[in-house]
Amino acid sequence: MAMDGYRGFLGLLVSALLVGFLSVIFTLIWVLHYREGLGWDGGASEFNWHPVLVVTGFVFIQGIAIIVYRLPWTWKCSKLLMKSIHAGLNTIAAILAIISLVAAFDFHNASHIPNMYSLHSWVGMIAVILYISQEIGKNKQLLIGFFVFLLPLAPPSLRALLMPIHVYSGLFIFGTVIATVLMGVTEKLLFVLKKPAYSTFPPEGIFTNTLGLLILLFGALIFWIVTRPQWKRPKEPNSTLLQPNRGTPEGVEGSMATNFGNMDKSDSELNNEAAARKRNITLDEAGQRSTV
Amino acid sequence: MAMDGYRGFLGLLVSALLVGFLSVIFTLIWVLHYREGLGWDGGASEFNWHPVLVVTGFVFIQGIAIIVYRLPWTWKCSKLLMKSIHAGLNTIAAILAIISLVAAFDFHNASHIPNMYSLHSWVGMIAVILYISQEIGKNKQLLIGFFVFLLPLAPPSLRALLMPIHVYSGLFIFGTVIATVLMGVTEKLLFVLKKPAYSTFPPEGIFTNTLGLLILLFGALIFWIVTRPQWKRPKEPNSTLLQPNRGTPEGVEGSMATNFGNMDKSDSELNNEAAARKRNITLDEAGQRSTV
Repeated sequence: MAMDGYRGFLGLLVSALLVGFLSVIFTLIWVLHYREGLGWDGGASEFNWHPVLVVTGFVFIQGIAIIVYRLPWTWKCSKLLMKSIHAGLNTIAAILAIISLVAAFDFHNASHIPNMYSLHSWVGMIAVILYISQEIGKNKQLLIGFFVFLLPLAPPSLRALLMPIHVYSGLFIFGTVIATVLMGVTEKLLFVLKKPAYSTFPPEGIFTNTLGLLILLFGALIFWIVTRPQWKRPKEPNSTLLQPNRGTPEGVEGSMATNFGNMDKSDSELNNEAAARKRNITLDEAGQRSTV
Repeated sequence: MAMDGYRGFLGLLVSALLVGFLSVIFTLIWVLHYREGLGWDGGASEFNWHPVLVVTGFVFIQGIAIIVYRLPWTWKCSKLLMKSIHAGLNTIAAILAIISLVAAFDFHNASHIPNMYSLHSWVGMIAVILYISQEIGKNKQLLIGFFVFLLPLAPPSLRALLMPIHVYSGLFIFGTVIATVLMGVTEKLLFVLKKPAYSTFPPEGIFTNTLGLLILLFGALIFWIVTRPQWKRPKEPNSTLLQPNRGTPEGVEGSMATNFGNMDKSDSELNNEAAARKRNITLDEAGQRSTV
């Protein structure tokens, strides 16, 4: 049973990686085969960095950053390490997103196309601003927590209040990015597919619509993986100690299997003494709790 | 404290209703003031039913259907009644969505515009098909459960397996519908805003972009309301009896306040004996448990 839950997770993870990777490949084929290729000359080939970097960074890498805590083989790693990986991936995604904006603005300016008039640009800019704000807030906490790792930066009640907002806004931004990508594909195909028109089902239209579906499917897989309570990283041992009445006799893998598909089971059941006993509490692990 | 949690819920609910209502009003202003109005003659005024019915049914009514279980004053109503309201709202939304598709296809056929070539149409059609499949499956269960309300249609383990899939796919469809609406706005503005062009910031462009942001905000509010564990409808009393070790001494309202913002608290804490005692178990309520 434990093996079933683990296999289910692995199957979905491999699917998500495959679909995400295919999305990046499709984007590259789109700009290299159907469009003007890649360059940095203010022309269409500079613009083409925009979809490539958005799909690579803002979709694929952000998607991986969202599920990185869910990989069962990382549950024995310190949470500070996992937070650093989560933050590092998000930072890479943010940098790629910013470069992708520069490519789009440069192209517009060189071609005297106005900026920021479309719904795609409005929603996309909101997503980038929210993403970077969220990241600055979190990384400040993480960096201070890294150097002064025993300092409790925020009282647990405040952290308990902020964490659901962080999780929610992260997923909201990710969903908004995907919606923005679908708008971007729509815009671009209507701009460039004239002869033959988009409405005559040219190969580029069908190919790029398929890219849109792949990106939607990638989002669906990431959302499924991240919202299953049974695949959540178990809480740190000492937070178990704060709730001594919530331990159960099952092990982590046992919980994974029995919780499979049961939305009403408590996340806290993963947070059990058997799991706690499996871990070595290092100074880092004790320290990272102040970094939320 | 209990009052704070309740006020927070009410504030968000009123905001969601307001933003949803404004989205419908903005859509009507768009088609009546900026576009050709409403009609059913195969022309642009027939097409205009497409955005009106989609925003009214597939966005606003579907959004309400998603959060209908969360209204605290319905927690004393039988769950069969609430399921009927949830299903009824979804059925209305589905009918409006189908009429909206007829309007779009009719307009295309009359104007010799090809159907189903754009990413908007592909993603939208997938959303409609998933939505109707989900509804047929659920309504069959509900109808059989209504007439033969003591028949256990599915073993509890199967229902426990299907419910998270239903919740997930409902939210995925809702998010996909919003992304499709944003693509539809993008398409329509690029088609019709020629002189002056969309890129010259005409009033219609700015107005309709704002409509897009309102719809995104509506989605964000519905997602926030539906993902707070503390605002979840308490489980039926006899499911408490199946887990006798999970009761807590708090009342429902107490739990609502203390769980506020705490993602790690168990949903099951709402499912406590105090809440169970507040209810009258009627035959209907006993029967509805067979309807998933």
